[in-house]
Amino acid sequence: MDLSFAYTGIRVRDLDRSLAFYTKALGMKEILRGTMSHGGVYVHLKGPGSSQRLELNWYPKGNRFARPYRKGEELDHLGFWTRDVVATYRRLLRDGAKVAVRPWREGRYEIAFVSDPDGIWIELLGPAKKRREANAKA
Amino acid sequence: MDLSFAYTGIRVRDLDRSLAFYTKALGMKEILRGTMSHGGVYVHLKGPGSSQRLELNWYPKGNRFARPYRKGEELDHLGFWTRDVVATYRRLLRDGAKVAVRPWREGRYEIAFVSDPDGIWIELLGPAKKRREANAKA
Repeated sequence: MDLSFAYTGIRVRDLDRSLAFYTKALGMKEILRGTMSHGGVYVHLKGPGSSQRLELNWYPKGNRFARPYRKGEELDHLGFWTRDVVATYRRLLRDGAKVAVRPWREGRYEIAFVSDPDGIWIELLGPAKKRREANAKA
Repeated sequence: MDLSFAYTGIRVRDLDRSLAFYTKALGMKEILRGTMSHGGVYVHLKGPGSSQRLELNWYPKGNRFARPYRKGEELDHLGFWTRDVVATYRRLLRDGAKVAVRPWREGRYEIAFVSDPDGIWIELLGPAKKRREANAKA
């Protein structure tokens, strides 16, 4: 089929703020940037250990795509894998992320959610730690 | 950095409807499925020509993540590459997608948007066709 899923575009209200968050806190790198004829800016980001791409979309006021920003439910979350959910969760909170859902154990996994500067949920998914298993049994 | 962007999760209101759309119209394949302890279901999809993953998230009524669905601006769009934007756009409309933005020429590219059963925008991006260039100059 002549169709290939290339990236996910999230709308950001402050491009510099979001770029700082995704590059510094989440360790992604800018790999592509452009301006559309209607004035909108797009920046492609790629992170370590994955070819998955994230696009940041920013529109100037009055742009035909710049509808008033409001929270919705379409984007459930962006999923990130980490080997240590609790450590990464704590580090991200220090680096500007907000608490969404505190870490919990889900079968063989540990899961937590933080939110980005626009309120987008970021899932942290990783293996449940053996030492916590041991503690839970003790 | 111990953090890897693994997938994008979109919330769907009708899992069967969205699965049919993403597998039949967009040609993606189910590669993973699971149920969370809180009852939510997740299905991972992967399409041709890309390792990019899409997760469909469905929550039963009363689930702690099942907030009322409303349109928001966080998810700008899901980006898909196609060699023939106009043909793919027309096919997707026949296959159940809705018109979002009709095809237009943007420099060397052609772009269009359709929307999925929940109203999520899907971008179709591809090369501008030579024959249209010739027509435009004529």
